[in-house]
Amino acid sequence: MVNSLDNNPPHQVVIVGGGFGGLYAAKTLAKAAVNVTLIDKRNFHLFQPLLYQVATGALSPADISSPLRSVLSKSKNTKVLLGEVNNIDPEAKQVTVGDEAIAYDTLIVATGAKHSYFGKDNWEEFAPGLKTVEDAIEMRRRIFTAFEAAEKETDPEKRRAWLTFVIVGGGPTGVELAGAIAELANQTLKEDFRSIDTSEAKILLLEGLDRILPPFAPELSQEAEASLTRLGVVVQTKTLVTNIENDIVTLKQGEEVKEIASKTVLWAAGVKASAMGKVLAERTGAECDRAGRIIVEPDLSIKGHPNIFVVGDLANFSHQNGKPLPGVAPVAKQEGEYVATLVKQRLAGKNLPPFAYTDHGSLAMIGHNSAVVDLGFIKLKGFVAWLFWLVIHIYFLIEFNNKLVVMIQWAWNYFTRNRGARLITGQESLTEFVISDRNYTSADNKLPVNV
Amino acid sequence: MVNSLDNNPPHQVVIVGGGFGGLYAAKTLAKAAVNVTLIDKRNFHLFQPLLYQVATGALSPADISSPLRSVLSKSKNTKVLLGEVNNIDPEAKQVTVGDEAIAYDTLIVATGAKHSYFGKDNWEEFAPGLKTVEDAIEMRRRIFTAFEAAEKETDPEKRRAWLTFVIVGGGPTGVELAGAIAELANQTLKEDFRSIDTSEAKILLLEGLDRILPPFAPELSQEAEASLTRLGVVVQTKTLVTNIENDIVTLKQGEEVKEIASKTVLWAAGVKASAMGKVLAERTGAECDRAGRIIVEPDLSIKGHPNIFVVGDLANFSHQNGKPLPGVAPVAKQEGEYVATLVKQRLAGKNLPPFAYTDHGSLAMIGHNSAVVDLGFIKLKGFVAWLFWLVIHIYFLIEFNNKLVVMIQWAWNYFTRNRGARLITGQESLTEFVISDRNYTSADNKLPVNV
Repeated sequence: MVNSLDNNPPHQVVIVGGGFGGLYAAKTLAKAAVNVTLIDKRNFHLFQPLLYQVATGALSPADISSPLRSVLSKSKNTKVLLGEVNNIDPEAKQVTVGDEAIAYDTLIVATGAKHSYFGKDNWEEFAPGLKTVEDAIEMRRRIFTAFEAAEKETDPEKRRAWLTFVIVGGGPTGVELAGAIAELANQTLKEDFRSIDTSEAKILLLEGLDRILPPFAPELSQEAEASLTRLGVVVQTKTLVTNIENDIVTLKQGEEVKEIASKTVLWAAGVKASAMGKVLAERTGAECDRAGRIIVEPDLSIKGHPNIFVVGDLANFSHQNGKPLPGVAPVAKQEGEYVATLVKQRLAGKNLPPFAYTDHGSLAMIGHNSAVVDLGFIKLKGFVAWLFWLVIHIYFLIEFNNKLVVMIQWAWNYFTRNRGARLITGQESLTEFVISDRNYTSADNKLPVNV
Repeated sequence: MVNSLDNNPPHQVVIVGGGFGGLYAAKTLAKAAVNVTLIDKRNFHLFQPLLYQVATGALSPADISSPLRSVLSKSKNTKVLLGEVNNIDPEAKQVTVGDEAIAYDTLIVATGAKHSYFGKDNWEEFAPGLKTVEDAIEMRRRIFTAFEAAEKETDPEKRRAWLTFVIVGGGPTGVELAGAIAELANQTLKEDFRSIDTSEAKILLLEGLDRILPPFAPELSQEAEASLTRLGVVVQTKTLVTNIENDIVTLKQGEEVKEIASKTVLWAAGVKASAMGKVLAERTGAECDRAGRIIVEPDLSIKGHPNIFVVGDLANFSHQNGKPLPGVAPVAKQEGEYVATLVKQRLAGKNLPPFAYTDHGSLAMIGHNSAVVDLGFIKLKGFVAWLFWLVIHIYFLIEFNNKLVVMIQWAWNYFTRNRGARLITGQESLTEFVISDRNYTSADNKLPVNV
């Protein structure tokens, strides 16, 4: 508003990353008298909370993705740029994409997090994580290939390894993956195979702490564990994974060490800051936490750099209760909206009180008619929680066509227990036929251990 | 029926390939007193006629795919095997998958066709074809990346090469791709970019013969060409492509040679038999045509091998009017059903007259409210043809949930002119950022030619 009165060029806001933090910052700035450039290396916003449904064949990637240009099409002050920021120069106030420099007055960094294997990066090959569309398609390939390989395998021990699914990490993603795979094995695929009984699949959910879903109230953790157990999932808490290699997962439970032969290990355990965190810290002198997240000021800016903000999973905001806010979509969304509002207020010569996260609660899907919801003032479980989970997720999907299509897919999945998107695709499924090709090494001379 | 009365094991039918030919053969045998094994290297049936809609961001792969196990789940006599047949032994009456031999009494080979570059296989890198889900995702990546790259490009000549789309081949796939890209450029993406006007994109459809859609009546070819021209597509008939290399397409029109600078060349021109054709010919002594298709008997069997049948795009059936039947879904479907019925009749000690294809007509979508339909006795164009095209494609989709989802996506696309599935995904979009990485070589010293 200030700038529109004189001849100065409009205030330039550059947003790096089109996840929940970046996208909601851009949306909040849609009608402001600023120029916005949103830079992302992908051309779409991904609704990550539903990514596990892509990994388990219930939804397609496009059902939970929205082209950034399409979402921001009507924000005429906003330019979307497909590219990866490789440098930030706080002195010159510019970021670099390829060899192009883009100037900013305000910079909002929202590049999120990636998996962390706690220094054991060689585990990734055996235990992929779930952050991108490509991750989900790879997980889907592995899950459905495992059933196919079991159908062909005649050696009972190898067959059991194909039918053993190990999920590392008992947070919402781990719980949701475990529940969905149990439903696949017990319902969706049950009539489809001729040599195996898919309901004999063993699904293990491993958690290091003493209960799953640690952010939830203890009684909901118990409820979730009971529901998963009814679905046939074996929940193992106080369990540390000490190695994942050649289809063998090594566990430590107290003093006891176990080995589990499994062809399908899924990683839902740890995350760390995206690579941009390191660049940002180096260039601005910002302090990072152990996970590489930038420790931010009460207004989400970087200390000494009032015009550089960090929002979402890349930010460590600990001014509310001394603990960092969790890396979930609502935090990122509210942080993005806060910073955008702050920018508008500053331009109008006004102030804004420090950021405060309003926690509306936590949700986790377990399976058919079963979920847990912790709203603080009320705790829901079973069918009511399940319905609440569906409504909330539909509501927050960005685009109307996605809402419709996801509703229909879910209704279909609900009534038929079928999942239509269980394609085995991707380059690896083509260049080599994975079942016969993947070596089955360690388990040949090691007995699988029952847990 | 014969076998169920004595102690002989049931008649074994092995079907290789789960496309239209193989799937409809299996469905027709669902209740017969035979054992069926359907072998495919993919775990899903793909509704290829709609693949161009995946390539242009209108639908997701799962919307036009059906898991083979799910489709055949209720056929308790049928076993689905994920694998690639690498050998056929007509003496021992068995096929080999990996190192497993599978015995048959009747063999139905339906492995289809793949692209043919008429011996110029090096063109494939620059001009991908459209046969698999992975092909469609790669085409989609190239189409949407081209607009992104044009948005960033400041050199007008290079920008024009990014905004030039060349489609080689004026059959239904080429026409449908050209129409869909024109709609993208003129409608869907028009409001989404800030530096380019997407409607300035140049879309060329090249055809060697004297008209596009050669299987249709000449007046419909004319109508299609007029409709495409209205959409802004430049249709060039009697045009031969003599080279595709380094983003330059070389054409020959009569004696004239032209060069077109284009970053996005799509191949919709030729097909040849899948690799199984060669194996089959070697093992059975069957005769092949120039495209590698197996020349079959009036009952679709191979000469001298009455228990080996070839159906679909791999078969050359010329007994009806001296010309081979076209490689389209209805031919494959009817051939698969015929052979399955023949097997049942033989087992009941009965005969069946030779195969005869019932041509219900040809359809091609051009764009919004525009298509051409040739039913022989009636020819439709414009809105009526467009509606007919939609209804027929919905009707023939295999699964009910796909019908619903595709209907909703189409309704959405129709009313909003939006296309939600325009994701740039795949390994290549991740490992390197394609826009800055792909070299722009030849066009640097060659002027693009207007055609």
